[in-house]
Amino acid sequence: MKSITKATLGRLPIYLRYLKSIKSISQNISATQLAKALDLGEVQVRKDLASVSGKGRPKTGYETEELIFQLESCLGQKDTCQVILVGAGKLGRALLDCEGFKDYGIEIVAAFDIDESVHYSAAGKPIYPLSELQSFCFMNSIKIGIITVSENAAQEICDLMIKCNISAIWSFARCELTFPENVTLLQENLELSLAHLHNKILRRD
Amino acid sequence: MKSITKATLGRLPIYLRYLKSIKSISQNISATQLAKALDLGEVQVRKDLASVSGKGRPKTGYETEELIFQLESCLGQKDTCQVILVGAGKLGRALLDCEGFKDYGIEIVAAFDIDESVHYSAAGKPIYPLSELQSFCFMNSIKIGIITVSENAAQEICDLMIKCNISAIWSFARCELTFPENVTLLQENLELSLAHLHNKILRRD
Repeated sequence: MKSITKATLGRLPIYLRYLKSIKSISQNISATQLAKALDLGEVQVRKDLASVSGKGRPKTGYETEELIFQLESCLGQKDTCQVILVGAGKLGRALLDCEGFKDYGIEIVAAFDIDESVHYSAAGKPIYPLSELQSFCFMNSIKIGIITVSENAAQEICDLMIKCNISAIWSFARCELTFPENVTLLQENLELSLAHLHNKILRRD
Repeated sequence: MKSITKATLGRLPIYLRYLKSIKSISQNISATQLAKALDLGEVQVRKDLASVSGKGRPKTGYETEELIFQLESCLGQKDTCQVILVGAGKLGRALLDCEGFKDYGIEIVAAFDIDESVHYSAAGKPIYPLSELQSFCFMNSIKIGIITVSENAAQEICDLMIKCNISAIWSFARCELTFPENVTLLQENLELSLAHLHNKILRRD
């Protein structure tokens, strides 16, 4: 499969929402029509659709139903991806209860923490003791884990996740992690994002 | 001033920490020595230092004390930047109490929320009623604001921040914001980051 850029991925829910709203009235749609309706550049829309569905047919463009199906597949909405999170502090709970992941076919199904009793988040999601992580991951074939523990515990949690067969990790811990080659790590650095914004205005003034 | 990339900015605290640790024993340091000590590429270190301090002198390199001063200035540590936040939900409180911003000379000094009474976060930071935002911003010359309110309130808060003379906004709200040209907006999209990670492993498997 061709890889999809983050920018393209970010626009897919917009196309999907629009196509669903018109599917009863329009059997076909072209990249040109879609670009116009959504006020986006035509070249961009053409590229985005090509990476999801290949080239449209001359004149008719894409079949609306088919394109909806392909967008949903690409966004993982045909088969929701279950994700777990370790570290149920403020940030962890904020992510756990965040509704926006659904648009991309992702659900954070449970959190794990060192506390030995089971808790529930404000939205009713379970927070289990860390000792249950491994059996939960195996039983639910979890492939993605989020690390929201502090710096000094992060490597240990990373190692544990890998033991649980997790192959993609999104870490918010402020430290570099060591991990095997077959694991994909995305290191989030919120501090650096704000610092970069600050630096931009420092240099503008 | 030359602009600094986000990647360079992310390495500056590493240089600074190391230089402070050796300043009593080493009056000068070259990019080569620094690269070796920190296990970084020499070309990269040379470029990073050039954007902060210009070229080093032949043979001697940089004066340690001077370089420390320039790194600190560049990171804004000579003059901490005070930032405010609107929306003291879970994510807002997590950011408010996050310690990592200090490394970049930034402090989130207060949060604001619709609640009419004054609260305090777990770390003791004040959460004021929104009605006090404007006077607080003017009194403290606040230039950066963070939006962690829900989608339907975000534009209103954005407009209010602009009225308060804030010129850089970091928004976590899931919607596009309209803002004047002289304002810098950084739109954070955590959902998209996780979706991109998911998409990477979908396409790898």
